[in-house]
Amino acid sequence: MTRDDCIALDARDPLRQHRAVFTLPQGVIYLDGNSLGALPRATSAHVRDVIEHQWGEGLIRSWNSAAWIDLARRVGAKIARLIGALPDEVVCADSTSVNLFKVLATALRLQSSRPQVSVLERRFIVTEKTNFPTDLYVAEGLIDLLGHKHELKRVDFDEIHAAIDDRTAVVMLTHVNFRTGAMHDMHAITRLAHDAGALAVWDLSHSAGAVPVALNDADADFAIGCGYKYLNGGPGAPAFVFAATRHLRALTGDAYAQPLAGWLGHRAPFDFDHRYQPASSIDRFAVGTPSIVALSALEVGVDTVLAAGPDALRSKSIALTDLFVRLVEQRCGDQGLHLASPRSSAHRGSQICFTHVDAYAVMQALIQRGVIGDFRAPDLLRFGFAPLYVSYVDIWDAVDTLHQVLAHAEWRPAASQVRARVT
Amino acid sequence: MTRDDCIALDARDPLRQHRAVFTLPQGVIYLDGNSLGALPRATSAHVRDVIEHQWGEGLIRSWNSAAWIDLARRVGAKIARLIGALPDEVVCADSTSVNLFKVLATALRLQSSRPQVSVLERRFIVTEKTNFPTDLYVAEGLIDLLGHKHELKRVDFDEIHAAIDDRTAVVMLTHVNFRTGAMHDMHAITRLAHDAGALAVWDLSHSAGAVPVALNDADADFAIGCGYKYLNGGPGAPAFVFAATRHLRALTGDAYAQPLAGWLGHRAPFDFDHRYQPASSIDRFAVGTPSIVALSALEVGVDTVLAAGPDALRSKSIALTDLFVRLVEQRCGDQGLHLASPRSSAHRGSQICFTHVDAYAVMQALIQRGVIGDFRAPDLLRFGFAPLYVSYVDIWDAVDTLHQVLAHAEWRPAASQVRARVT
Repeated sequence: MTRDDCIALDARDPLRQHRAVFTLPQGVIYLDGNSLGALPRATSAHVRDVIEHQWGEGLIRSWNSAAWIDLARRVGAKIARLIGALPDEVVCADSTSVNLFKVLATALRLQSSRPQVSVLERRFIVTEKTNFPTDLYVAEGLIDLLGHKHELKRVDFDEIHAAIDDRTAVVMLTHVNFRTGAMHDMHAITRLAHDAGALAVWDLSHSAGAVPVALNDADADFAIGCGYKYLNGGPGAPAFVFAATRHLRALTGDAYAQPLAGWLGHRAPFDFDHRYQPASSIDRFAVGTPSIVALSALEVGVDTVLAAGPDALRSKSIALTDLFVRLVEQRCGDQGLHLASPRSSAHRGSQICFTHVDAYAVMQALIQRGVIGDFRAPDLLRFGFAPLYVSYVDIWDAVDTLHQVLAHAEWRPAASQVRARVT
Repeated sequence: MTRDDCIALDARDPLRQHRAVFTLPQGVIYLDGNSLGALPRATSAHVRDVIEHQWGEGLIRSWNSAAWIDLARRVGAKIARLIGALPDEVVCADSTSVNLFKVLATALRLQSSRPQVSVLERRFIVTEKTNFPTDLYVAEGLIDLLGHKHELKRVDFDEIHAAIDDRTAVVMLTHVNFRTGAMHDMHAITRLAHDAGALAVWDLSHSAGAVPVALNDADADFAIGCGYKYLNGGPGAPAFVFAATRHLRALTGDAYAQPLAGWLGHRAPFDFDHRYQPASSIDRFAVGTPSIVALSALEVGVDTVLAAGPDALRSKSIALTDLFVRLVEQRCGDQGLHLASPRSSAHRGSQICFTHVDAYAVMQALIQRGVIGDFRAPDLLRFGFAPLYVSYVDIWDAVDTLHQVLAHAEWRPAASQVRARVT
């Protein structure tokens, strides 16, 4: 394998024309699209139109004339196509954290409303120890608010199956681990949860736009996810939330089953009804007024993913990550790097982690040389591969830079720097 | 009073140069800034810079290099100056509805942690019947989630004082009513609440940027508010949340006192700690990652208000609303209009409502003629007066148009139109 081989792979890449959809700075190899997606070229002009024409000229009238009122559902319906959901099952709203609170509370309510179930006996929310911290915090916050009738059971990746039993209320997992990229088998775990009488809640933050997701095929109950990673929606883009149609139907008569009852969750917000009557649709998972500017940017980002299609993205993602692992091990194998992600592409998302004893300093040195990845404590170098805009020659050049940094100990001077506070 | 008199008032208006800070469409008199503020001229260029340079070129590095990580607090500190709070007591986050959930839950927690208080005895959340619906929904949703240990007591505006007693846990009011503009005496009610052992939570959605607010002077406990009305932050702009320093201090040891525990509420989010340890500051009321694009637009809007100063805004707001009431009653007094707002400017915010039996059709006719206000069911014509960009001659011309519409029954053809779904 040579650099020319990578150039040849790029020339044959069916997604090669999608890179031009993004603005990428000169001299940068961006391997952090799993943290913040790159900027689509169309975003700035679209947002400008929304601000200058829809807001500036349309003013309040644009809620109707520019269909702002439908925007959260319109973008939600587009995301639904990426995650195997129906258009009526997804809405954009709030943050991933707030959406997790909603679906977890709703899932517990569904469990408590089953007459045969004792809350005290079916008390566990099963999750992974290394889940993204906000997921753990949100669950603990809800458990505390509900008076500690439930308990968060944190287990290792490999112990999930064994941890699911008839005391499990909810299995709450992030599909693709935020550090290692290890990917759960959504179908198998959801089936196991259902067989045990539990419900399955999936965080798709590191999946949507990167790996194929088939929520309804897997019979998933609830899901949430992030708009600013592989969906390219911009920093802090609105999140999304999914609820299966069967649950939306079952909850119709229970006004506060989704407890964050805001006016946009009402079935007729503009009636200004003094009594809350939730929408029978996914709209009940909307709460307050969403940022139209932020949603508009997100829509452009989602469109970039839809234009490529999940299968093409997955194929290239696998090829990129496999190539990265192979080249790193070939060229830097004796430099203290150890693969921390699953070796089999079938068991991971679109990111790769290596451990290194001086990972922080090494990543700082890489960033100074234009190869942008992440450091994750204590010793992880994390690289994300957004197949829409990362090329095969990027992989070659990134590994080449990594090789130089490690071979010449070029990272040492950076070790004294203050640690960056970036996600 | 003539149109020339209004032109003379505009010429003497100390805020006259602020109108040019906004883009207002030709032929429109915009009396709906209480629903969606007008577009500041500087917003589009600033957002473009954030998108194209900070996001497009800086990418993930901008969390540090462009200080994205501090933006929610920086804008919060600016809003603090408008509402009589300390810079460390306000953060921008989420929506008004989600923020109300947080502060209400926290207030109930504070009450339940007082050893002398029985939750069952101090069970009431006192509010106003005609509070904005989302406030009522959010309170009911929380009460339901907590197992109906509390009860929402909905009373009329004039009954608030009498309703506060030793069974009151929290007084939850919107400072300025979303329909009538009637304004509560924040100082008196907060004092009454405290004297009764209750806490006071204020929704400032129709106050911030329109009327002077002095949260700490009034000894308020918690407050929330909206960024898209008088703060000119754009449609669905992020909201803000205030907690008094004394409560932030008292809550330090209680991890989930604010139950929406998200990673940005952690005292060190980038440690990716598996145990939630909330920030000791207002940061603990942050939850997930905020939209940087939306916050950036909000910052420009807040700056337009800060540049004018609350006293000048209040003086002009009173002059505009007084003039509007006087002209409407002089010129349209026999046309079936009845003032639904307090007659005394001391008791109202920056909006005026009149009832009319055909209010919906009349408002549609006004909007068709470029005078944009709101219809509110069943019979209200609502007009907001953003003193930054509404002129005295706007008032004259708006009333002139209203007079023409009513005198010639020009509104009749519009009556069959579908009701607009705008707030």
